[in-house]
Amino acid sequence: MPTEPHYRAADLVRFATGLFAAAGCDAGKASAIAEHLVEADLMGHTTHGLAQAGAYLEELESGAMVKTGEPKVIADRPAALTWDGGFLPGVWLVRNALDLAIERARKFGIAAVAIRRSHHIGCLSVYLRQATEQQMMCIVACSDPSDATMAPFGGTTPVFTPDPIAIGIPTKGDPIMVDISSSITTNAMTGRLKREGKRYPGKWALDKSGQPTDDPAAIAGGGTLLPTGGADHGHKGYGLALTVEAMTQGLSGYGRAEKPTIWGANVYVQVMDPAAFGGTENYLRETSWVADLCRQSPPPAGKAKVRLPGEQASQRRRQGLANGLALYPGIMAGLEGWAKKLKADLPRPI
Amino acid sequence: MPTEPHYRAADLVRFATGLFAAAGCDAGKASAIAEHLVEADLMGHTTHGLAQAGAYLEELESGAMVKTGEPKVIADRPAALTWDGGFLPGVWLVRNALDLAIERARKFGIAAVAIRRSHHIGCLSVYLRQATEQQMMCIVACSDPSDATMAPFGGTTPVFTPDPIAIGIPTKGDPIMVDISSSITTNAMTGRLKREGKRYPGKWALDKSGQPTDDPAAIAGGGTLLPTGGADHGHKGYGLALTVEAMTQGLSGYGRAEKPTIWGANVYVQVMDPAAFGGTENYLRETSWVADLCRQSPPPAGKAKVRLPGEQASQRRRQGLANGLALYPGIMAGLEGWAKKLKADLPRPI
Repeated sequence: MPTEPHYRAADLVRFATGLFAAAGCDAGKASAIAEHLVEADLMGHTTHGLAQAGAYLEELESGAMVKTGEPKVIADRPAALTWDGGFLPGVWLVRNALDLAIERARKFGIAAVAIRRSHHIGCLSVYLRQATEQQMMCIVACSDPSDATMAPFGGTTPVFTPDPIAIGIPTKGDPIMVDISSSITTNAMTGRLKREGKRYPGKWALDKSGQPTDDPAAIAGGGTLLPTGGADHGHKGYGLALTVEAMTQGLSGYGRAEKPTIWGANVYVQVMDPAAFGGTENYLRETSWVADLCRQSPPPAGKAKVRLPGEQASQRRRQGLANGLALYPGIMAGLEGWAKKLKADLPRPI
Repeated sequence: MPTEPHYRAADLVRFATGLFAAAGCDAGKASAIAEHLVEADLMGHTTHGLAQAGAYLEELESGAMVKTGEPKVIADRPAALTWDGGFLPGVWLVRNALDLAIERARKFGIAAVAIRRSHHIGCLSVYLRQATEQQMMCIVACSDPSDATMAPFGGTTPVFTPDPIAIGIPTKGDPIMVDISSSITTNAMTGRLKREGKRYPGKWALDKSGQPTDDPAAIAGGGTLLPTGGADHGHKGYGLALTVEAMTQGLSGYGRAEKPTIWGANVYVQVMDPAAFGGTENYLRETSWVADLCRQSPPPAGKAKVRLPGEQASQRRRQGLANGLALYPGIMAGLEGWAKKLKADLPRPI
């Protein structure tokens, strides 16, 4: 059986930067999107890596994703900012928001940026390293007020998007990178399983009548994603979704009440500087201690050892940077048409 | 069948204030604890209401809960504060921390207080109204680094406490009050079910060997609480627990690494002022809109209508304040000995 083609991460970034630049993004935006998507693939988040590039290029072509310009500042208080993203590339917006939140957190101890009307922001956990490498704890949450696939717990009609929230926690070693959706599974995973004729590993959805099901096709048939906790204790994911929507739509002051119809994202970014609280050294001692306790907890007989969230992603990333990266099947093939259209050379496998 | 005795909430507060004052708390602390516990009972959180009063009085008697004094300020930055609570009553500490965070959030947009070495803080959702009544969004999280009952996902030994996090979200009507533990269930509920010879409604724990079980006695037998998501997707609750421990122990700079042995709490309190972000009116429009979408989502045939988190608690509280409050069976009987010892008159049923 032939090995799948492997690519150098830098070659993939160069290729994707070329595509987004040719599609009309100014240089900073094109490279920001490209770096983000390849980073997602490096970390193993293959539904949110270059798998999204085609959709982004379509959005840029149609003008739904805006190619140039700056966000509009709605409010700027010492530790709290609000931007109108004007449907600029979400990846670029969130990177800039995070840089600003880090700067303000260093000054005030904690800081947050709420963004309305961003375009799609990709994979949340990719952003976390930007803060944790500077010994900062951070939160990134998003929702899309133009879409809904998850019902409130006890209901049968979609109200929420999967409403993910990611938390970056620096330690003395690799950062802990939590990235959890408020629903058990995501829209991207649902689409992939449905295309591949597969089932969810558990009853992760409700059909139209409100019965739990493992069929991803139920969503397109009027069903809904179940909140985290499922039929058993889904009030927890429901509570998380309400929190994420309040952070991203409430604080940004724009959301479902405006009935937006454009694919986009509302975002909330928050940074806490441990140096401003009980001290960075103390913070790292505590988080590293708990991480060690987790690693040392023995698994049940015959099961794999306990991992920290993001541990596998950090290992994969190191390996991919060192040895090259195999993309999820079909992704490069899906980009060949775009490469031809935008006159970009395909990256050469190594 | 006779009706259970009902009490006026104000009479219960007066009674409990008297107990805590007689136990040596200065006046502000005694009434803060009493008001908090009765409020928990009013909201229906009966494991964390006056059910805790006996344990608190024992801790005050032994000196483990400190009766007088102020927290020590470890750090005071514009929007981030850190306190050493010195095992003062947690309820009183958190109320004061929340007042301070509200004041700072009004100035800087967002603010947080991390508290190490507090004593027990009672029911998290009781605090939320303090912020939401002032149109502020807030987060309260806590952990107890001296205790562990929940395993990391995939492990079999306890590392975390249930690590709850509560979020207060103001709306145009009743606030949304999310209060979720990182584990599926709590230590208090486990104790109650075990005493009553009952089972969990689902496989909410692991036995010592790591097999899922519905037996609350498994915890005392070397088992562990399962994280939210259970055996199916417990990486979500695991991620929440790591977040809560980083907020409460990492940011406060003190925790499991110090191997504390005294019953206590580490606390993280955060307040966001919608007026500093996209505007209070816009915030309330969005949160109220989403709340309405949830209420309007039809339940499956024959099931109860969708509720918002905290909705039932707000209704119970109104009813209890108007018509009096029936305590969970056994609670008043458990306090009779303390009333005698501390020479406090028992409250008269209405």
